[in-house]
Amino acid sequence: MRNRNILWLLVFLLAGGTLWAEETRIPAKGYAVFSKEGSFQPYTFTRHAVGEEDILLDLLYCGICHTDLHFVRGDWGEEPYPMVPGHEMVGKVVRVGKKVKKFQVGDYAAVGCMVNSCGHCGMCQRGEEQYCETPGGRILSYAVPDTFHGNEITCGGYANNMVVSEKFAVKVPQDAPMEKIGPLMCAGITTYSPLKFTRVKKGDKVGVAGFGGLGHMAVQYAVAFGAEVTVFDVNESKRQDALAMGATKFVNVRNPEECQGLEHTFRVILSTIPAKYDPIFYVNMLQTDGELVIVGLPATENTPMLNTAALVILGRRHVCGSQIGGIAESQEMMDFSIKHGIYPHVEVIPVWKIDEAFEHLQNGTAKYRYVIDLKTLDQTPPKK
Amino acid sequence: MRNRNILWLLVFLLAGGTLWAEETRIPAKGYAVFSKEGSFQPYTFTRHAVGEEDILLDLLYCGICHTDLHFVRGDWGEEPYPMVPGHEMVGKVVRVGKKVKKFQVGDYAAVGCMVNSCGHCGMCQRGEEQYCETPGGRILSYAVPDTFHGNEITCGGYANNMVVSEKFAVKVPQDAPMEKIGPLMCAGITTYSPLKFTRVKKGDKVGVAGFGGLGHMAVQYAVAFGAEVTVFDVNESKRQDALAMGATKFVNVRNPEECQGLEHTFRVILSTIPAKYDPIFYVNMLQTDGELVIVGLPATENTPMLNTAALVILGRRHVCGSQIGGIAESQEMMDFSIKHGIYPHVEVIPVWKIDEAFEHLQNGTAKYRYVIDLKTLDQTPPKK
Repeated sequence: MRNRNILWLLVFLLAGGTLWAEETRIPAKGYAVFSKEGSFQPYTFTRHAVGEEDILLDLLYCGICHTDLHFVRGDWGEEPYPMVPGHEMVGKVVRVGKKVKKFQVGDYAAVGCMVNSCGHCGMCQRGEEQYCETPGGRILSYAVPDTFHGNEITCGGYANNMVVSEKFAVKVPQDAPMEKIGPLMCAGITTYSPLKFTRVKKGDKVGVAGFGGLGHMAVQYAVAFGAEVTVFDVNESKRQDALAMGATKFVNVRNPEECQGLEHTFRVILSTIPAKYDPIFYVNMLQTDGELVIVGLPATENTPMLNTAALVILGRRHVCGSQIGGIAESQEMMDFSIKHGIYPHVEVIPVWKIDEAFEHLQNGTAKYRYVIDLKTLDQTPPKK
Repeated sequence: MRNRNILWLLVFLLAGGTLWAEETRIPAKGYAVFSKEGSFQPYTFTRHAVGEEDILLDLLYCGICHTDLHFVRGDWGEEPYPMVPGHEMVGKVVRVGKKVKKFQVGDYAAVGCMVNSCGHCGMCQRGEEQYCETPGGRILSYAVPDTFHGNEITCGGYANNMVVSEKFAVKVPQDAPMEKIGPLMCAGITTYSPLKFTRVKKGDKVGVAGFGGLGHMAVQYAVAFGAEVTVFDVNESKRQDALAMGATKFVNVRNPEECQGLEHTFRVILSTIPAKYDPIFYVNMLQTDGELVIVGLPATENTPMLNTAALVILGRRHVCGSQIGGIAESQEMMDFSIKHGIYPHVEVIPVWKIDEAFEHLQNGTAKYRYVIDLKTLDQTPPKK
């Protein structure tokens, strides 16, 4: 009998523990797709518990990003389903963990593309969490394993609530137009950031390629920074909007005449195009030292372009060229070389050995620099 | 009789004038190729007169650059023949125009890839004459029409002398090792300049791809700047040289094992490779914010690569990507957006219209941002 009581106690404790654990998870409902061909259906699920540094948001709005389309359709690889997309969220704080400092219940907050990162790598320390260098360290808002929460697949903002570390939530004033806040967390920041790091300023000529969700934000920021903005798109119906938002020029790239005479025009071009295109078209329009910043990513069907774009995007890497240097710099280099004894390794040859030297260059066997001794111009080549 | 005297006087004056004009041109002899398949042959020609701001050099040495090979073989297009290549010249000043200030007879001078430029465009004013923006303004040292001298084709330094504007000659100390000076004007400056504008400094990890005429200069400069240098080449025989010049590592890119584990390693990679290769191989090894600087140009047989490389080289253009922004920056952007009233143009939709919204995104007819109203999660979709 006593044994039986103990058994019941054990059962009760186990069940109670389980119930308690279940209660700490947050029930959520949203809209999901269940396959890459599928359409959106209502979906109920749970989110991880509100940790000490987390906040629980009742979501108000969530933007739809072109990226969502790519993810849902599996454009960039195999994705987990059911998938609840959405990384342009805004909502009201309804619960806070006990160590939360930035938010109080009743505040408004926005959440974007990330919900966590390692926090200790160089990039995270610099506040560039989007470039977190720890494998698995950066957690996207949906469709990826959350390494901080048992690798459960993250669910985004096409839902009624969100649990997120306060570090990855952004403060929003009470009186903000909430329906417009979510997209700032993706389209806004994605265009704002490159306009900042390329130091766009008053008078700069800036191109914005692709006038969609990102592009129309880019135009506004660039105009606010004082730039003279030209918009490129294929859709004639966007011309008036672009001009109304402050662009000085709209170029329909399907109209060859409009594309004339733009070589060497722009200091910065921001490409937001999410489809196949030739980036060289825009590189050609850059001023010397100009920068083409690619923020749009096409689907994998255009593999070569994707590879390049993905690589430069994922690291905010620059691919640039260089061509000799100026005269003042040549003098500087000369003085520096001599001061430091930095010289090429040369093989001095007579003029009649140039062909032979070329053969070595062609074969890659030159080491490292042939130098023609020009006094041999006056000499007679030896008989062969 | 008097008429006859006048006639003779006229003949004499005309002949004298012609003789005088001929005398002002500078006779030169060098080595030239007479067709793209041809070999080098002795060649006599004349150079334009020594103008007021020009100097006449007795050339001592001229380096041979891989570019010479490309030009001679017509790798980059139709070239004029006979061609006297050479853009790595050093010599002694033997005559100076009356307005020359920088040089005296007896000085030593070096001449590189350019012999003139427009002098008034923004790039020239900045001392970046290599990026001179005036069409026909920048005059290469050989094989191009010299717009400042009646479009005569320039002849390079495979010759006994050179006439050049003092602005395009660089001072060389009397006691310099003259045979090593010429290549500094191409291989030297071409590698020095990008290491400067990428601000290579002590402790930076720098890659040098291609260890030839340019590469071996790059290694030395980078080492002098305090960088930790890795060399990439296909030629095993260069390993010891690279290490001897101060590289800490040599990677034979034909050996897959050596190429492992180099992702996210370098802040700067300087590619001096003049042949076909995949730049993505190197982009992959860049740190976040890293830069691949391309200074080598393959022959036209690899057209796509050439197009890209040529375009970035000719403008020192950067192609970079960007990916959202950090949290601190997101807050900054948020505050900025609100302060300036910068918001996306949104269309608020109920959850059951997400599919429809996606169709618009796919078709490019979205303007510009759909925002899901999440309170509609609790609502019943209208009957269709």
